[in-house]
Amino acid sequence: MTHRKLEPHEIEQALQQLNSAGSPDWTLDNGKLTKTFKFKDFQQAFGFMTVCAMYAEKKDHHPEWFNVYSTVKVQLTTHDVSGISLKDIDLAKKMEATASRG
Amino acid sequence: MTHRKLEPHEIEQALQQLNSAGSPDWTLDNGKLTKTFKFKDFQQAFGFMTVCAMYAEKKDHHPEWFNVYSTVKVQLTTHDVSGISLKDIDLAKKMEATASRG
Repeated sequence: MTHRKLEPHEIEQALQQLNSAGSPDWTLDNGKLTKTFKFKDFQQAFGFMTVCAMYAEKKDHHPEWFNVYSTVKVQLTTHDVSGISLKDIDLAKKMEATASRG
Repeated sequence: MTHRKLEPHEIEQALQQLNSAGSPDWTLDNGKLTKTFKFKDFQQAFGFMTVCAMYAEKKDHHPEWFNVYSTVKVQLTTHDVSGISLKDIDLAKKMEATASRG
């Protein structure tokens, strides 16, 4: 996968794509691709995290995330390019697909 | 399990017990029982979270936690007593035991 820092207009385009697919909640927050997912309960929230964790490990690209009960806030960035890369967009798409599968 | 807000001296005692068992990293941070666990890698960190998540769900008492790669920061509190209860001490002990098992 391409592994360079995306330009602002590329990030903007990716955000539009992500937000047109699911609920429009992806933002660029403090340089990180960010979304707060809300689930029915803890089981659903941690189930989502488990699927995403397996994917992240397989791709060797991991999220920052915070969980409390049914809420999961994720923040994606690529350390070695000091910005957003296609790896983050890919992980965001996977998260969106996983969450919408409910 | 007893479900009342613990007094400061009870929390202090519990912290001493927790810290004598494992590494002395449990603190009271902003009214929450707090520890930052460090693991070898993401697999170990998320494995820890998975065991704790099952336990939390079973006990119906859930943590706030933040994970990035091999680090897991947990913050425990009991909302309906607006403080620390024995439920938090119990979950902290489980986390300590799970983490030290490697």
